[in-house]
Amino acid sequence: MQQRVTKSARKLLDRFRVETGKGFRLKQIDPADTGGFDLDKNGAKAKLADGIAMLAEAQERLYADDRHSLLLIFQAMDAAGKDGTIKHVMSGVNPQGCQVTSFKHPSAEALDHDFLHRHQAALPERGRIGIHNRSWYEEVLVVRVRPEILAAQKLPKAEVTKRIWDTRLADIAAYERYLANQGTVILKFFLHLSKEEQKQRFLARIDEPEKNWKFSMGDIVERGRWDAYQHAYEQAIRGTAAPHAPWYVIPADNKWFTRLVVCGAIVRALEDLDLRYPEVTDAQRAELGRAREALLAE
Amino acid sequence: MQQRVTKSARKLLDRFRVETGKGFRLKQIDPADTGGFDLDKNGAKAKLADGIAMLAEAQERLYADDRHSLLLIFQAMDAAGKDGTIKHVMSGVNPQGCQVTSFKHPSAEALDHDFLHRHQAALPERGRIGIHNRSWYEEVLVVRVRPEILAAQKLPKAEVTKRIWDTRLADIAAYERYLANQGTVILKFFLHLSKEEQKQRFLARIDEPEKNWKFSMGDIVERGRWDAYQHAYEQAIRGTAAPHAPWYVIPADNKWFTRLVVCGAIVRALEDLDLRYPEVTDAQRAELGRAREALLAE
Repeated sequence: MQQRVTKSARKLLDRFRVETGKGFRLKQIDPADTGGFDLDKNGAKAKLADGIAMLAEAQERLYADDRHSLLLIFQAMDAAGKDGTIKHVMSGVNPQGCQVTSFKHPSAEALDHDFLHRHQAALPERGRIGIHNRSWYEEVLVVRVRPEILAAQKLPKAEVTKRIWDTRLADIAAYERYLANQGTVILKFFLHLSKEEQKQRFLARIDEPEKNWKFSMGDIVERGRWDAYQHAYEQAIRGTAAPHAPWYVIPADNKWFTRLVVCGAIVRALEDLDLRYPEVTDAQRAELGRAREALLAE
Repeated sequence: MQQRVTKSARKLLDRFRVETGKGFRLKQIDPADTGGFDLDKNGAKAKLADGIAMLAEAQERLYADDRHSLLLIFQAMDAAGKDGTIKHVMSGVNPQGCQVTSFKHPSAEALDHDFLHRHQAALPERGRIGIHNRSWYEEVLVVRVRPEILAAQKLPKAEVTKRIWDTRLADIAAYERYLANQGTVILKFFLHLSKEEQKQRFLARIDEPEKNWKFSMGDIVERGRWDAYQHAYEQAIRGTAAPHAPWYVIPADNKWFTRLVVCGAIVRALEDLDLRYPEVTDAQRAELGRAREALLAE
């Protein structure tokens, strides 16, 4: 029998789910929250393995049903665990039904288009899961925090006013509304890390030789803009949270908890779609019968 | 310590690896071959799990090294197990480093381009694995077997002669040579199924309701062209096998064996690249030291 997300798991997920931006403050969610769980490494692994098995099964249904696509957006400060979460939650899913795109600095070619353009090219087909590791939200995060990036964007001058961030957020919200109307299920994950835990993870990347290649001085510079980023995230969540495109603000100081919540949120979203394997019509059943005869008569 | 592909495993892989087309005949390989192994379900599962763990580790190196990409092409008759092999061998690999593209009938837009065009758009980036479920080889397989498809391709009339298949094979071989020169490692898998085993699998798809949606009458029609397809595959392998772009002709009557050989071939190819994690230069080490100080001084 198919396993289901339990009521208590749904309740826990609700704690981190933001469906309306009104009155939302980042401070409402503690980066160190573990939902009352205190799992050791093996306990967390076993629980995540259960979740991944449910996810793999749900993804098969999504694929067979072929009406919806699932867009997962991951945003976070450096070292919050985006890559690790994608790896640990999504390994185990059939890669034929799942594609990950990591967005880096836009190319000169991308800058000659509107900002959604390169992301649209990476949207998942019906029946598939598409993961955007960073996304169009960078346009209201890093671009908001660092004015020189906005200056390089070749926008019509009349657009570049104080109101540009509200305009962009409204444009993103409208586009996500459209995607939802087309059958795309959208989940947006902000991995919510504390400033202290980021410091510890940076030190680990510096002190452990095999982690060195993941670190650059630029990460320290960005850390210096911490408050500006937190403000930008809060505004982005307030401006775009919706029942059809919720944000999950996920405590990220404990990796095992981050992964469990992300996995649970995805399984829940797929479960709520009530996905079904295609049904065979009477005409198809008759055709199957003829095919059977043809094979046996060979 | 890193596990390595054993000598005996390499020897077994060599049995199915075609590096030169000269004198190759499909009949040389028995679809029912299991390489002397006789594993039960659990034994095969455990062996595949070992292989997948090695593959996951090798893929991390490929990603960190970021110089090569790996292109895996899967071709086969219906029901030979392409989808199942991709699912069972590649689930477990970080989806951030692996993308699967399934090629179906070309769109009207694709037909307005050269035949490689739509496939090129799906080639893997450096550091990544790209899987093409069907590929440009369809242009010398289904298009060769069914003349009406060629007729719909809007080619210059002078090109459509008896020599078109040899020309296409030479064009494909030259393009694969170019990709290899650019750092793309190419492995081409033909899952070699017997006609009798295909019949049994078709009957199972008809008789088991949950498999019905995978079957259509068109599959029976294609089966009627069996010999023409076998000839086209043999010609394709003869025309394009090369040390830098080998074919693996993999016995496909036993799914567990197919999966083990595919997994082994991929791990071997990655192992032969001698992939390394990026090394830290003295300048970078000094920078890391400054970053450390900056963090501790906060």
